[in-house]
Amino acid sequence: MFRHVVLLAWTSDATDEQKAAVLTALGTLPDAVPQLRSYVFGADAGISPGNHDLAIVADFDSADDYAVYRDHPAHQAVIAEYIKPILASRAAVQYEI
Amino acid sequence: MFRHVVLLAWTSDATDEQKAAVLTALGTLPDAVPQLRSYVFGADAGISPGNHDLAIVADFDSADDYAVYRDHPAHQAVIAEYIKPILASRAAVQYEI
Repeated sequence: MFRHVVLLAWTSDATDEQKAAVLTALGTLPDAVPQLRSYVFGADAGISPGNHDLAIVADFDSADDYAVYRDHPAHQAVIAEYIKPILASRAAVQYEI
Repeated sequence: MFRHVVLLAWTSDATDEQKAAVLTALGTLPDAVPQLRSYVFGADAGISPGNHDLAIVADFDSADDYAVYRDHPAHQAVIAEYIKPILASRAAVQYEI
């Protein structure tokens, strides 16, 4: 399988409502993107200073299926409407598992 | 369960041998740290510009078990001997799954 991992950090002025809206919006993607085999995301637990604020671990059958997710209009809409307005930093890795 | 996700980026002068040695060293940790329920790590596939270079996704029964791993001498030795010498950047999140 092929795994996509992304960690996001929010701007200091991001509100709790904006952060919660990202989680809600991400929750719609498994139904919208059938290539998603597993989609496990969540807010940082707050036990480690300097952490990013949100993790997404997404598994696919192949790198091609990951690309379908990456470019999917539903995913791009979540990024544009909910993530980008409060995004301070992003780190990502894709790897074979 | 409790998940720890970390993404690492290597310095530009890190050698292929040094990068491979990190993977080998990480592979010893599941036997050394019984609190690890799942440990799935790998080098970035190289299909996305700007990515970090290595992902580790580690699952535990609890945040307390994650702390045992974090502070375990075998883990700290891998960090000190293999990771720190070539580490350029690190991003992490812990979250309930």
